[in-house]
Amino acid sequence: MCVIKLLKEPELEEPILIEGLPGIGFVANIAAMHIIRELKGEKFAIVTSSSFQDFAMTVEGGGVRAPINELYECAGRYIVLYGNTQAGSNVGQYELCWRILELAKRYGCEFVLTMGGYRRERVVGRPKVYCAATDPDVLEEARELCDGVVAGNIYGAAGLLLGLGKLMGMKGVCFLAETPGFYPDARAAKEVLSVVSKFLGMEIDLTRLEQAAILTEGMLRDLLEEEEGRKGGIV
Amino acid sequence: MCVIKLLKEPELEEPILIEGLPGIGFVANIAAMHIIRELKGEKFAIVTSSSFQDFAMTVEGGGVRAPINELYECAGRYIVLYGNTQAGSNVGQYELCWRILELAKRYGCEFVLTMGGYRRERVVGRPKVYCAATDPDVLEEARELCDGVVAGNIYGAAGLLLGLGKLMGMKGVCFLAETPGFYPDARAAKEVLSVVSKFLGMEIDLTRLEQAAILTEGMLRDLLEEEEGRKGGIV
Amino acid sequence: MCVIKLLKEPELEEPILIEGLPGIGFVANIAAMHIIRELKGEKFAIVTSSSFQDFAMTVEGGGVRAPINELYECAGRYIVLYGNTQAGSNVGQYELCWRILELAKRYGCEFVLTMGGYRRERVVGRPKVYCAATDPDVLEEARELCDGVVAGNIYGAAGLLLGLGKLMGMKGVCFLAETPGFYPDARAAKEVLSVVSKFLGMEIDLTRLEQAAILTEGMLRDLLEEEEGRKGGIV
Amino acid sequence: MCVIKLLKEPELEEPILIEGLPGIGFVANIAAMHIIRELKGEKFAIVTSSSFQDFAMTVEGGGVRAPINELYECAGRYIVLYGNTQAGSNVGQYELCWRILELAKRYGCEFVLTMGGYRRERVVGRPKVYCAATDPDVLEEARELCDGVVAGNIYGAAGLLLGLGKLMGMKGVCFLAETPGFYPDARAAKEVLSVVSKFLGMEIDLTRLEQAAILTEGMLRDLLEEEEGRKGGIV
Repeated sequence: MCVIKLLKEPELEEPILIEGLPGIGFVANIAAMHIIRELKGEKFAIVTSSSFQDFAMTVEGGGVRAPINELYECAGRYIVLYGNTQAGSNVGQYELCWRILELAKRYGCEFVLTMGGYRRERVVGRPKVYCAATDPDVLEEARELCDGVVAGNIYGAAGLLLGLGKLMGMKGVCFLAETPGFYPDARAAKEVLSVVSKFLGMEIDLTRLEQAAILTEGMLRDLLEEEEGRKGGIV
Repeated sequence: MCVIKLLKEPELEEPILIEGLPGIGFVANIAAMHIIRELKGEKFAIVTSSSFQDFAMTVEGGGVRAPINELYECAGRYIVLYGNTQAGSNVGQYELCWRILELAKRYGCEFVLTMGGYRRERVVGRPKVYCAATDPDVLEEARELCDGVVAGNIYGAAGLLLGLGKLMGMKGVCFLAETPGFYPDARAAKEVLSVVSKFLGMEIDLTRLEQAAILTEGMLRDLLEEEEGRKGGIV
Repeated sequence: MCVIKLLKEPELEEPILIEGLPGIGFVANIAAMHIIRELKGEKFAIVTSSSFQDFAMTVEGGGVRAPINELYECAGRYIVLYGNTQAGSNVGQYELCWRILELAKRYGCEFVLTMGGYRRERVVGRPKVYCAATDPDVLEEARELCDGVVAGNIYGAAGLLLGLGKLMGMKGVCFLAETPGFYPDARAAKEVLSVVSKFLGMEIDLTRLEQAAILTEGMLRDLLEEEEGRKGGIV
Repeated sequence: MCVIKLLKEPELEEPILIEGLPGIGFVANIAAMHIIRELKGEKFAIVTSSSFQDFAMTVEGGGVRAPINELYECAGRYIVLYGNTQAGSNVGQYELCWRILELAKRYGCEFVLTMGGYRRERVVGRPKVYCAATDPDVLEEARELCDGVVAGNIYGAAGLLLGLGKLMGMKGVCFLAETPGFYPDARAAKEVLSVVSKFLGMEIDLTRLEQAAILTEGMLRDLLEEEEGRKGGIV
């Protein structure tokens, strides 16, 4: 069971589907959230699937939120897939991605862009961004903006949307930024989005993402020092 | 596969769906059973799902019962979901909850109330009751009657019915009572039902539930003393 | 996916569905095979399910058999469910049983009889036969022919057909014979069938089953003696 | 979900379905690839299933490939099932095989031929080829070309296509060649294809497969010697 509830008809012209679900380092999730905020995206559909977790999450103060995916229309050109979960089984993932691609196609979408984190033990300096694409032309374009190409499998919706999209006749590209992966990585999200915005010719201000990255880095540094302090105390 | 067999058309006006399936401490199950008994509920539908266990249970004397969920009409105002099992997979849970909500909606239901236990290592004195709600207005109302709000996820049908109900445009609230969770906790059920009845303006006599709670507590005390006696013997 | 392929229209009058799938000690399987042979049953349908194992079995000489269930018409009064497998998941079991019950109902079936083994560490003398039923009248009748009633759950198709049958308005009974369960137990099958034939007023010759039981017992005795001989040799 | 996308209508006359999916030693996969190349097969359908893995594979240089199955028309007489994966669950396998058989039947297919590896600790000399068949006539024919018959189960699509095909009224045969199974075994593929081509009266040049086998054997010998050299050094 996968139900898409349309909240309103979006106005879109040859839109590009941008995937931003939670994954490694929450890179895509953070980047998608930033696009939605900066481009004043409007939610036009909510998606639920029987492969999501069977519980409700409570938020501060006793509010209740269901595991959900949402579609936002941004700048009349992008459909951003955002949410707080991915499907928990491969059958569920296929159905979810298939249904979202079908809907996107109905609005004229012929291009899918997915994002994510590329797990690294240690990320030194600026996180590098890697790409992969279903089409040689697209790949060439993407490579010019990236530090290299993805080696290995692309897991979850980020990979599946490309493969299923191709079956539906859509071209697709994926951008992954290096990340240690164990915390929400705004720095990696910023690097991915920097490449994505160039690739798409998307005008977007990355200042807030840079601020979030600096904030996160500060917090991590404090944590690290504290830990080293404790270690020192033991010695 | 989820099959709802309608036994008769219930007479209901803007009914409220009350969930009472087995869960932590059987709190919801006991409370729902009490509502059905006191309000002389009439069974109007039985629900089976391929996600229930694939066996038959025997009861005393060789009778056979299937894993099942049932819907009761109570006082023309409530649909009580009662049963001896929940679905064993999240796909099954989604389908089951979805189908029950659809049916409830068909009878004009716009509000879902779920109940349950809130597991605690140790419950001191009267079990506290916590709430969560999908809607700020409802939450405010509920908080006035409770000791606090739920933190963390609400598992199973109690959580899912809220989330899916919201997607279908229904408001929802959940009440959880503290319970150690390892025995059928009539005390917790009484506390939850005490709040629920105030919240709904439901006229219901809780005497029998109080008696069951006292009985259970007596049995537990005996068990405890016996155990301590044995420990003493060893020393 | 559960596909029932009808090979021919059976001629049946208010038939009784008799379940004989593989289970503990192959008790039902052996008993059903005996009914089919003695009553010259005719196969009228084959059933396949995506919950059966995904392999083909080879038989002596290179033949290939699929995991399958079959329906036989016996004596114009019985539908015997026979096969070499049960479904491997509860979702599959529900679908399979549901579909078979639907078909049986179409032929006027209002009664389901299931059989099986009742696992015992040690079976002394004649294996006892226990019963369970969905209906008080049926239970009473069955108890008169049995050594007692089943306590605990009835797993697999033997249990599920009763529960789902009840939902479809069919009465049902289950007979289980004691068996150690680790070998095909013709003795237990004979005991079950002896009760079943009395219960149904089915005229059936149990000689061959008795012979098979004696043969099996001889083989087991030999194995046992051989083993004890070996143990003796070690001492 | 199992989606077959027809790329074009193949021209086929009473075609034979030949299975060549990845399995033990990639025997069928290599043999099928060879048939497609030598007979200049044309892809006419792509198949995706929600039971395939939920990721995209990247290939050298950043290209992206989805887990997929494909159907090729070869010489107007064969439908070759080729791909880079099998379904990951038995439910998925059943649906996939069923759908492919349905499609094949629509083109007049009445015969299924499956291939595979027969795992052996040690293969001495020419790998032996074993057969199994759903029909006595076919089995007799196949046995004359083989070293023996298959004992035990035939796993995956190779087995399931036979069993389900039989249910659909198609005859079927399976040829398995001995293989250690842990590397892509071109030698075993050649032996299987040698038997298959005789069985089908298929004119096909096996030279390239022989070359690949020699190449593989050379590489394995080098690896082995290197390893023994290392062992020697240790002693």
